[in-house]
Amino acid sequence: METVYIAIGLGLLAIVYGIITSQQVLGASAGNEKMQSIAGAIQEGAQAYLKRQYTAIGIVGVVVAILVFVFLGAISAVSFVIGAVLSGVAGFIGMNISVRANVRTAAAAQTGLQEGLTVAFRAGAVTGMLVAGLALLSIAGIFYVLIAQMGLDLTVLAEKREVIDALVGLAFGASLISIFARLGGGIFTKAADVGADLVGKVEAGIPEDDPRNPATIADNVGDNVGDCAGMAADLFETYVVTVGATMVLIALLFTTLASADLFALMSLPLLIGGVCIVTSIIGTYMVRLGKSNNIMGALYKGFITTTVLSIPAIYWATDYAIGMGTAYTVGDQSFTGMSLFWAMMVGLAITGLIIWITEYYTGTEYRPVRSIAKASETGHGTNVIQGLAISLESTALPTLVIVVGIIVTYQLAGLMGIAFAATAMLALAGMVVALDAYGPVTDNAGGIAEMAEMEESVREKTDALDAVGNTTKAVTKGYAIGSAGLAALVLFSAYTADLKEFFPDLEVSFSLENPYVIVGLLLGALLPYLFGAMGMTAVGRAAGDVVVDVRAQFAADPGIMDGTSRPNYARTVDLVTKAAIKEMIVPSMLPVLAPIVVYFGITWASGSQAEGFAALGALLLGVIVSGIFVALSMTAGGGAWDNAKKYIEDGNHGGKGSEAHKAAVTGDTVGDPYKDTAGPAVNPMIKITNIVALLLLAALAAA
Amino acid sequence: METVYIAIGLGLLAIVYGIITSQQVLGASAGNEKMQSIAGAIQEGAQAYLKRQYTAIGIVGVVVAILVFVFLGAISAVSFVIGAVLSGVAGFIGMNISVRANVRTAAAAQTGLQEGLTVAFRAGAVTGMLVAGLALLSIAGIFYVLIAQMGLDLTVLAEKREVIDALVGLAFGASLISIFARLGGGIFTKAADVGADLVGKVEAGIPEDDPRNPATIADNVGDNVGDCAGMAADLFETYVVTVGATMVLIALLFTTLASADLFALMSLPLLIGGVCIVTSIIGTYMVRLGKSNNIMGALYKGFITTTVLSIPAIYWATDYAIGMGTAYTVGDQSFTGMSLFWAMMVGLAITGLIIWITEYYTGTEYRPVRSIAKASETGHGTNVIQGLAISLESTALPTLVIVVGIIVTYQLAGLMGIAFAATAMLALAGMVVALDAYGPVTDNAGGIAEMAEMEESVREKTDALDAVGNTTKAVTKGYAIGSAGLAALVLFSAYTADLKEFFPDLEVSFSLENPYVIVGLLLGALLPYLFGAMGMTAVGRAAGDVVVDVRAQFAADPGIMDGTSRPNYARTVDLVTKAAIKEMIVPSMLPVLAPIVVYFGITWASGSQAEGFAALGALLLGVIVSGIFVALSMTAGGGAWDNAKKYIEDGNHGGKGSEAHKAAVTGDTVGDPYKDTAGPAVNPMIKITNIVALLLLAALAAA
Repeated sequence: METVYIAIGLGLLAIVYGIITSQQVLGASAGNEKMQSIAGAIQEGAQAYLKRQYTAIGIVGVVVAILVFVFLGAISAVSFVIGAVLSGVAGFIGMNISVRANVRTAAAAQTGLQEGLTVAFRAGAVTGMLVAGLALLSIAGIFYVLIAQMGLDLTVLAEKREVIDALVGLAFGASLISIFARLGGGIFTKAADVGADLVGKVEAGIPEDDPRNPATIADNVGDNVGDCAGMAADLFETYVVTVGATMVLIALLFTTLASADLFALMSLPLLIGGVCIVTSIIGTYMVRLGKSNNIMGALYKGFITTTVLSIPAIYWATDYAIGMGTAYTVGDQSFTGMSLFWAMMVGLAITGLIIWITEYYTGTEYRPVRSIAKASETGHGTNVIQGLAISLESTALPTLVIVVGIIVTYQLAGLMGIAFAATAMLALAGMVVALDAYGPVTDNAGGIAEMAEMEESVREKTDALDAVGNTTKAVTKGYAIGSAGLAALVLFSAYTADLKEFFPDLEVSFSLENPYVIVGLLLGALLPYLFGAMGMTAVGRAAGDVVVDVRAQFAADPGIMDGTSRPNYARTVDLVTKAAIKEMIVPSMLPVLAPIVVYFGITWASGSQAEGFAALGALLLGVIVSGIFVALSMTAGGGAWDNAKKYIEDGNHGGKGSEAHKAAVTGDTVGDPYKDTAGPAVNPMIKITNIVALLLLAALAAA
Repeated sequence: METVYIAIGLGLLAIVYGIITSQQVLGASAGNEKMQSIAGAIQEGAQAYLKRQYTAIGIVGVVVAILVFVFLGAISAVSFVIGAVLSGVAGFIGMNISVRANVRTAAAAQTGLQEGLTVAFRAGAVTGMLVAGLALLSIAGIFYVLIAQMGLDLTVLAEKREVIDALVGLAFGASLISIFARLGGGIFTKAADVGADLVGKVEAGIPEDDPRNPATIADNVGDNVGDCAGMAADLFETYVVTVGATMVLIALLFTTLASADLFALMSLPLLIGGVCIVTSIIGTYMVRLGKSNNIMGALYKGFITTTVLSIPAIYWATDYAIGMGTAYTVGDQSFTGMSLFWAMMVGLAITGLIIWITEYYTGTEYRPVRSIAKASETGHGTNVIQGLAISLESTALPTLVIVVGIIVTYQLAGLMGIAFAATAMLALAGMVVALDAYGPVTDNAGGIAEMAEMEESVREKTDALDAVGNTTKAVTKGYAIGSAGLAALVLFSAYTADLKEFFPDLEVSFSLENPYVIVGLLLGALLPYLFGAMGMTAVGRAAGDVVVDVRAQFAADPGIMDGTSRPNYARTVDLVTKAAIKEMIVPSMLPVLAPIVVYFGITWASGSQAEGFAALGALLLGVIVSGIFVALSMTAGGGAWDNAKKYIEDGNHGGKGSEAHKAAVTGDTVGDPYKDTAGPAVNPMIKITNIVALLLLAALAAA
């Protein structure tokens, strides 16, 4: 039980770090009155969004919790609520720090670049460590209560089942929040952004971040809603799902292990998560500018420190929890603690490689972004064509990395190798979320500096901080998708293992020679396409609402354009919030209902429950296979378009205001819903489909 | 043997129809001198393209033929050559008729709309019937020679093997031509189109189809290269592959049938192809304008006639070849002739539904195109966003149709049900290719009318004919992809059946639980993305070459812009041809090499040949699953963008010259390489991957 105590202790350490660091952030100067007034409007807007969004999610959550209770029992329902609430808490606190750190970053940038970087990164680190800490605490806590308090025995079938149900329930709670946060947040942020641009830049001819534009505050709120709250919920979910599914898989596969050994192996993922919290915290203190003032380099220093320190930390954890020499056998696969250690090293390598590849595809120094910038010279069309080509191409290397990772880890330790590689990837989530949540803080800081008419030298610093934010946002999205893909494979394994436990007599053929498997694959592959289409049209509709509202405000009060009256920012924020919540409902239902419809539909059509399960399993894999490509292409492509515009704005190909720049703005607009709405929302969609399948299995078995 | 005789006779009938109809087309007036001079330049350009392209393909073909001979023997090599040559012949003759019918259509339009329609459609029908006729003749001929002349017995394992090898060799020959024709043609047509637009419309400010633009003839040649030669080769291949694979599957699965019964069943697909040539020919005579002058309606009259007449024709053919009541059993699937008939009816229904759905997504009367047109009002970015959303969405209904088709036909007659449904779909290829090849003729006719400064009333008629061509081109691409998807599933079944015959002792697990299957699926899913990226960047590069050449011509001879000198059209055509051939090599190698690399790579990595075959099989299915979505989304999306522009040009949302129109032009430009290069080339890519796998199996077994 010591292993679990240590994990819980380290989870609490993350929370303590979060509290101390947020005090530090809030203790920094919040700037002059004008800055505070703008930041106040953003804070109000964020508050309004959170209130409305969480109310909506809360209503759905209560209904779902009741359904879970009825079909699956109290333990599942309680775990569901814990997962949902803690995911919400991480996003809520993160958002609140983020919308207070933005103005403080702008103020600190008056002193120097390092000072601005420190405030912004610390704010991101609060969100990051809260995500990792609360996720770890939720799993370790539930495990502790069930085993130590309630005394469940993992070798007794019925009792093991309760542990599994609890972990799946927890993952489901986290997933439900995640899909709402990702989709609602994604629609909000891009509807506000596109709407503000259309009516401000295009129609009224006023610059971005102009305080006369009623949608500008909504735009700033949106940055936080997407990349802070959205990403936090996404990685909270992936963390819980990955670690949870690894534990579930252990419980399902190792049926001959003694109780103590099974417990030791199951608590290993928790300890891995724990020690990596320590290495992540150390990493956050390494984020410092060198002599060259290279901001990206400073952030990477933190990430690299965390990764390198995690190697001995994971070695120690593995040795402590199970022992390096301990041998295991599952089916025809055998491995030792040492094999698991190497599989986790592969997980770290995958993380590093995917981050590096994404930076290649979205950084202004490399061929892809420059090719888009060059294509902008010949017009809007060629910019978009080249961007689409890059977005398609960008899927290749990450896929190869994942494929090689699967092969190597499988050879090292079978399915467990894949599961532990995914666990090691996710153990770094604290650090990665910190990098991501840094983005909206600096983005906002730039906006506040612009609106508060701060000195040019300050604006240069906030711009420099913001430019890096674009890359870190893209890079962490690549990581989120890669890890989601591996996590989903672990979930799929849990599905097949669960199926064998619940329906031992049913002969289900997952062979590609079974036409129902092909049907399932096709339907699964369709989901990300349909979901992506819904997400993108939702942005268009919601942005249209913004345009109408802003036009109405301009018409009703000419003083707004003269700068004599203050526009009603809150009304626009409220409108975007309502629109985003309305628009997120239907697409969210897609991954929840699809597994149910496919299972019952195919069972009915084929007259065989086995074929229903086969098609459902194939659906899960179809979603993963197709979803990885859709998500990778959208996020990398969107990032590349964004930075191609930045590259031109830096004075290349004619610079700001040139025809090439106009074409690049088009590409950036296209990339926005790609990278911030549809693409990232595919992650939770993949996982929720898999989790619903697991729940369906449990419900069918209970029925 | 009568069945085969009838099939061969009906195949010859298609050729006779082609000869008579081309005489009719060529007998029509070719217009005045100016028109003939322009048409002459297009003909010269087409000739230059064909010569260079077929020389390049010829060289590759000879090398591959030698390889096939060395690894697989004489029968495979001869069949390979027949498939390649006949596919080339169909494209070659079709192109030659098409570039002569264009000017005759323009001339006939002077008399009336019906006259123009007749010439253009007849030209398309020549290509269509040549494709269906030659494809049928090649398979039936080889089958006849092997069985009747060489006396091979289908129940003797080694002799059956020779028949299978011959059919696979034939399909490989057709596939190799197809991928070159599709990719080379696709790159040519869009490089010329985009290049001509960039340098003409954007830089020099002269209208489209202005004879002063040196790239304008290349643009007109390109229309034929893509939608006539490219589509002809594509559907020739799909026809040969589908009918061939159905026969191969019968030979592999029905191991207990008596020789005569096996022969009868194997010749049924040939007879189906034969009778549908008759119904297609009748259909072509039904293409007549009604009182409302609805051109699309006239074309549909032909298609509907063919489809409806095919119902009794297929019934008769089934009854004649095998008898409606004859019962068959394969494994645990049993069915009768009647079940096969119903499966084929489902095939016809799938064809009709996919055509209808594609028209919905690309027609100016419906929501999708209008939503893109409306989104153009707010700029380039929103046009592209909405277009991308529509392109993602457009995959849903065709996928559902295919899924329901698979389930129903499988329940009717197992794998044979799916195979015969695909065969019935392809039996209509003659009519469908006719609809498609009509497109470039009218497109050229419009261009010639413009360049020859014909009367406004004539231009209106050619424009009306051309507008419908956009829809027919999109609609047939939807059909081509749907049928290619089903054909590939049949090929995949042939692969698994072949594997069991060649390596009966090898236990290969195609289960989704096998990680090597997941690896194969991921790598397969990657291929269409990588291939699409390559195709799109190739267009960009080749278009850049065009721009450079045209600029050089303008600079060297100012008389061109004044209209006093004739530009060197041939030089531009030659340049685009060279660029297209250069650009098609690398992407073409992708589907050829991928199966080989994956098989050997996974066999090496896993140390197990069985895992190598498992990953290879999964690769094939991954290509199909992902390829269908990539191809469907690209072709439907591209068509929708194109027609959204047309819809605005018809006077909506501000009409020609408005800001909305400019945005729509951007969308159209983006859609061009989507729908004419990358999207359609995915079809042959899917099939060639599968065929290479079959060849690899045979080569490994022989080694």
